[in-house]
Amino acid sequence: MEQLSKFDSRYFDVPTLSAKVGVPLKYQPHLGHNRWHPDITPAIQIHSGGEVILEALDVWNGQIHDNDDYSELQGIDTSGFHPLTGPVFVEQAEPGDLLDVEILGVEPLSGVAFSHIFPGTPGLLGELFPRGFKSSWYARGAIAESPQVPGVRIPAQPHPGTIGVAPSYELMERWADREKAVQEQGLVWPLTGDNALGRGLRDDQLRVAPRTQPPRENGGNMDINRLGAGSRVYFPVFVKGALLSLGDHHLNAGDGECSYNAMEMDGRTWLRISVLKDGIDRYGVTTPLVRPAPLGWRPGPDRYLGFTGFSFGEDGQGFQDATMSFREAMLRAVEYLMGVGYSGEQAYTILSVAPIETHISCIVTQPNASVTLYLPLDIFDKDILPRHVPDAVERSNRRK
Amino acid sequence: MEQLSKFDSRYFDVPTLSAKVGVPLKYQPHLGHNRWHPDITPAIQIHSGGEVILEALDVWNGQIHDNDDYSELQGIDTSGFHPLTGPVFVEQAEPGDLLDVEILGVEPLSGVAFSHIFPGTPGLLGELFPRGFKSSWYARGAIAESPQVPGVRIPAQPHPGTIGVAPSYELMERWADREKAVQEQGLVWPLTGDNALGRGLRDDQLRVAPRTQPPRENGGNMDINRLGAGSRVYFPVFVKGALLSLGDHHLNAGDGECSYNAMEMDGRTWLRISVLKDGIDRYGVTTPLVRPAPLGWRPGPDRYLGFTGFSFGEDGQGFQDATMSFREAMLRAVEYLMGVGYSGEQAYTILSVAPIETHISCIVTQPNASVTLYLPLDIFDKDILPRHVPDAVERSNRRK
Amino acid sequence: MEQLSKFDSRYFDVPTLSAKVGVPLKYQPHLGHNRWHPDITPAIQIHSGGEVILEALDVWNGQIHDNDDYSELQGIDTSGFHPLTGPVFVEQAEPGDLLDVEILGVEPLSGVAFSHIFPGTPGLLGELFPRGFKSSWYARGAIAESPQVPGVRIPAQPHPGTIGVAPSYELMERWADREKAVQEQGLVWPLTGDNALGRGLRDDQLRVAPRTQPPRENGGNMDINRLGAGSRVYFPVFVKGALLSLGDHHLNAGDGECSYNAMEMDGRTWLRISVLKDGIDRYGVTTPLVRPAPLGWRPGPDRYLGFTGFSFGEDGQGFQDATMSFREAMLRAVEYLMGVGYSGEQAYTILSVAPIETHISCIVTQPNASVTLYLPLDIFDKDILPRHVPDAVERSNRRK
Amino acid sequence: MEQLSKFDSRYFDVPTLSAKVGVPLKYQPHLGHNRWHPDITPAIQIHSGGEVILEALDVWNGQIHDNDDYSELQGIDTSGFHPLTGPVFVEQAEPGDLLDVEILGVEPLSGVAFSHIFPGTPGLLGELFPRGFKSSWYARGAIAESPQVPGVRIPAQPHPGTIGVAPSYELMERWADREKAVQEQGLVWPLTGDNALGRGLRDDQLRVAPRTQPPRENGGNMDINRLGAGSRVYFPVFVKGALLSLGDHHLNAGDGECSYNAMEMDGRTWLRISVLKDGIDRYGVTTPLVRPAPLGWRPGPDRYLGFTGFSFGEDGQGFQDATMSFREAMLRAVEYLMGVGYSGEQAYTILSVAPIETHISCIVTQPNASVTLYLPLDIFDKDILPRHVPDAVERSNRRK
Repeated sequence: MEQLSKFDSRYFDVPTLSAKVGVPLKYQPHLGHNRWHPDITPAIQIHSGGEVILEALDVWNGQIHDNDDYSELQGIDTSGFHPLTGPVFVEQAEPGDLLDVEILGVEPLSGVAFSHIFPGTPGLLGELFPRGFKSSWYARGAIAESPQVPGVRIPAQPHPGTIGVAPSYELMERWADREKAVQEQGLVWPLTGDNALGRGLRDDQLRVAPRTQPPRENGGNMDINRLGAGSRVYFPVFVKGALLSLGDHHLNAGDGECSYNAMEMDGRTWLRISVLKDGIDRYGVTTPLVRPAPLGWRPGPDRYLGFTGFSFGEDGQGFQDATMSFREAMLRAVEYLMGVGYSGEQAYTILSVAPIETHISCIVTQPNASVTLYLPLDIFDKDILPRHVPDAVERSNRRK
Repeated sequence: MEQLSKFDSRYFDVPTLSAKVGVPLKYQPHLGHNRWHPDITPAIQIHSGGEVILEALDVWNGQIHDNDDYSELQGIDTSGFHPLTGPVFVEQAEPGDLLDVEILGVEPLSGVAFSHIFPGTPGLLGELFPRGFKSSWYARGAIAESPQVPGVRIPAQPHPGTIGVAPSYELMERWADREKAVQEQGLVWPLTGDNALGRGLRDDQLRVAPRTQPPRENGGNMDINRLGAGSRVYFPVFVKGALLSLGDHHLNAGDGECSYNAMEMDGRTWLRISVLKDGIDRYGVTTPLVRPAPLGWRPGPDRYLGFTGFSFGEDGQGFQDATMSFREAMLRAVEYLMGVGYSGEQAYTILSVAPIETHISCIVTQPNASVTLYLPLDIFDKDILPRHVPDAVERSNRRK
Repeated sequence: MEQLSKFDSRYFDVPTLSAKVGVPLKYQPHLGHNRWHPDITPAIQIHSGGEVILEALDVWNGQIHDNDDYSELQGIDTSGFHPLTGPVFVEQAEPGDLLDVEILGVEPLSGVAFSHIFPGTPGLLGELFPRGFKSSWYARGAIAESPQVPGVRIPAQPHPGTIGVAPSYELMERWADREKAVQEQGLVWPLTGDNALGRGLRDDQLRVAPRTQPPRENGGNMDINRLGAGSRVYFPVFVKGALLSLGDHHLNAGDGECSYNAMEMDGRTWLRISVLKDGIDRYGVTTPLVRPAPLGWRPGPDRYLGFTGFSFGEDGQGFQDATMSFREAMLRAVEYLMGVGYSGEQAYTILSVAPIETHISCIVTQPNASVTLYLPLDIFDKDILPRHVPDAVERSNRRK
Repeated sequence: MEQLSKFDSRYFDVPTLSAKVGVPLKYQPHLGHNRWHPDITPAIQIHSGGEVILEALDVWNGQIHDNDDYSELQGIDTSGFHPLTGPVFVEQAEPGDLLDVEILGVEPLSGVAFSHIFPGTPGLLGELFPRGFKSSWYARGAIAESPQVPGVRIPAQPHPGTIGVAPSYELMERWADREKAVQEQGLVWPLTGDNALGRGLRDDQLRVAPRTQPPRENGGNMDINRLGAGSRVYFPVFVKGALLSLGDHHLNAGDGECSYNAMEMDGRTWLRISVLKDGIDRYGVTTPLVRPAPLGWRPGPDRYLGFTGFSFGEDGQGFQDATMSFREAMLRAVEYLMGVGYSGEQAYTILSVAPIETHISCIVTQPNASVTLYLPLDIFDKDILPRHVPDAVERSNRRK
């Protein structure tokens, strides 16, 4: 007779991995891991067609709090992310199969999400905002609002930002080889490092277990904001049991996650998982395949303002460079939002958390690729469009 | 009493620049130009708030025909594009204003569009298809079909691929400086060149008049497929009268126009043009601003299959490189389509002409940016999704 | 080399029945008919899978003109509608089949549409507007505007309001029996009457040939505004050849066509027609089956204002009466629009021509059925929503 | 540190009225009421701009269980519905104002919903299914599935089916007068009756307190399936404090709720409530005004199959009768679904719980109104469309 919550296991008997909100993963080591490895001990086992509910901590592992203390932003320890929940061992899954992962539902746990600009982090425009910025986003029902960005209301589209399966030993080696050069150039964090957690991995195994951050053939930190309720991902299976894990939930996110933070939160994802035998060969699939969510927010096709960015090829750089074009489009959008009354930090935050769409409009023009960044108009409580001359039928071109 | 067509000027007295289909621009020199320059003689003059209808030739200027002759693909002369129609002199427009360009309607002229893979052209995957490929796309009403790609039907979304205003002298110089390096590296066509047409420009002016191909601050070859009926573009005005021109119509196009050809066609665009005085300063706008079209094709949010691409950073290349990620996503999509029965050339063509969406999902992960390429499912006359195990409510996780 | 229009038969060799705009059907008797009958002589013959283009006059057969003369509204002769074009004889079609009619494209001919309130006509709220009202709607490209209703711009969704196949003799008799009572009560126009046109019918045949106005098993005046480009209708076939005809085009229309006029216009519809053998039995289809158009205008789900209407059951009338509920919802919408500055006639016209959606929300509550009328917000050049107190995150319910 | 649920009041301090699932309202009398009356004691008080979370029982007050016992369907006691939670007293609200009610979020409580065909109830086609039918619908995350209707999966769109404010004494009298006749004819349940619950009302007050079932000026059982998360309703205020209550949640519902049951469930709605002073006069609003939800399921415009229904006017009945047209369209849909393999009971259930759209396409044709019932295709795990002849570009109408 007691009240039951929607995802509560008392009515539906769905196996659940429950997370304690605010407690770093190292104090809940049964819950999951933060590195990929084929030998991580499964946290739960289901058969093909079964369901499971995975609760996960937020990407920052509880280091960020809902307050105005900017000092938190300084010494963020990034070694511990992503605190993933899992892995799930799926009984019939074998290398060569596809894992059909249905995302039946996604919810916040605490209802508070964070989108911060860390001073000195590699966000797309990070150098423009050296002081950083904190914003909390509250899930008031399914509407996200922030005291730091007043006048903006964003319908929530909760989704896991990081989801993937275990790599094989062979795949791990391929990654190490492939990324050796960029690591030696110091462009990225080491492939692995301190504070690795691996549910039963030995130290020598942990030392070679790759981070979850760059997305790769096994999924990982894909940051696809359409992976909400009703969506589906097909992963190539590299090891027996597939070993699926997820975390890094967002309350919402813009294409690009450009400030390095979407609306980062703890969350709960309900999955149904099936195996497509021999799916890799049958469909020629080598990276995750996505069926986007039927549910979520989809404004009318014209309820956007599109900012254009081009890779100008200054000094010979930027030849057909979609990343530069994206950065330019971002700059145009920040400038525009500042023109209608937002601070630069607010503008940058809006573009990171609102479901903006960043389309590569043309990649083959020379030298300038073009990217169009579509900003939804309906998140603003005022009209931000350019004010135009009054429309009227009475114009110069009358009928005879 | 004679039959009138929709855009016919006999009922509505809209000033119209009429093109002769199939006749290269050099034989219709009154119609337009193929270089940008502030001193091109206007083809038509209207006042702010007025309307105009511009008919334009296809990008290939009539060099391509609806037949099976592959030899046409060899010696394509690219010096003559884009044959633009205009410019339109807008009376009240002054440098510093924004030009508010409403696209009221867009239509094909002949109803036939071409999407070809030219042997040796710089499409995203050009080197994979050395023989090239010809496909004609017929506008059967508002549905596009091709005899070369059977089983595919694509709702039309006609739009001008190239639209822009004249640069100032100062802006032309900035371009020349900026692109000098990539030109010296031979990465791009010369800024200008043979077969330049400029409606009254002297030879010395034509020699410095930039091509229309890479999109820049003035618009140009932006290839934005949402610029169909009902859309709006705001251009910064650089010269008195603004001097708007357009052409390079597409019957439809995918984000990226990756094969170097969308559905290329002749077309007719009906515009209403207004001036927002001092709009550049008032809104901080320095590149074109887009209001996407309310009309057009928009499948349900889940009627897509998404292919993921990552910039793998092989040999230190590809660090956060969205262009590489896009190329990888394209490869995944081509492989998949070949797996369900299309040839590589057909697959590449489909991805160039269907309104695929290519989103930059994450740009800040290191080293791999992620791009998701969403392919609409409803263009296929068969189900191309991975076949899954039968769904059933009866599963392992029953309620107690 | 001459300019070709999109639907022009010079490029695509599509058989076309061409209408002379403004010339009543009786002066173009080869073009079509205005009554249903199994023995009407076909105007054109195609085989299954073939295409045809049908041009048709507007519903009022040229009696309405684009001027301010209200006297035109008085003596409208309704005996002649609908001037339909056809019939098309489809070679393989036999009674018992389904006719699969694809609407590939729809266009206005003259580009001018009329939406009038006729004094004394049976529109839903006709008695409130005894003086009547004239409005012309111009297709400026794909955007409809009216000098009589300034401040409103409606994306066009052209479609044939009347489309159907010939009834069998048996079906005609069934109709006559069924509607005898309402005719005797004088509730409807006679089943047939003066000014009947029947392409070769003898007078005795014409006398029993039913009007095209009420929609029935064979289609007819269905007024479904989603029958635009890309849509499909499946008709039961009652006679050999099916004998498909259409007309009564609208530039756009609201659900209900409540003033008795949508945006009424001449138009041209491009069809592809196939036969599904024995489809009536195989699918149990006895009235037309509709696949709505993929193309057209679809605002965001929240870009509507919904007016609720209930059948109040006054004096015992109105028990679960969706028609009364609809009328009540209409009244609420008219009152609201008058409150934001439109005249009653303008409001009634807007609700007839804009693509409003009228949903039967609940039919089983007693005694009041509920209808919700959704008015699109984006047709107005001003914000018509109730002005609310400023939104703010700072409210009474703060977090602890 | 304990786990928090999304709507849990431990993080956000939102006043909440908590329901015990499965316990009839009469055993939780503090929670709410099941009649309208101006003098019901408020259950909670907030000021304008404040938020509140209301949990409510399902419409059947716990009489239905998730089992195969058909005998439950026989003796359903309908006197107790709807068990509403509230009322909420809003401090600044006065008669003449509008109450702006934002629905921030809606969730199931237990996750199980019921859609039953009761033998002998007044559903639209009730007489066709005399035996009745039971179906349970499980919220597996945000996807609804039923063991009794296999092969169907419906994205959830939870919403309160009944929501309204208290009537004034004057309004109650108006209702009593207005509905007297239909009551005397025995068409409806008595205006009030046994098992009335009124939170502190005296017996004499309860005896005249109207039922919540038919929707009226104050809202009530409106059954609008777009009232999900992010939506907004504006109610006329009739008494001081407005006295808002709600209940009768649905996991999803079709337009019409034709079997008399949507997916009926317990649920929880999070509201933010503001007052628009003098809104009734300022906007001329006399029945609830709806802003539909931005979130929810919205298939592509062509992912529907439309069934047409006409009011045939048999024996003089059915003149422009949208209710008859709706019933006819329902019959066409049931016949079709039976043709593709569902039982009649399953078909009727699908049409009651899936978000079908029932549009009044034309109301002014004589005698037949037309209703189009759009059934979403994507809920079925098989293709239910008529199988057509293979599409091909090669057809009879080739280009010259």
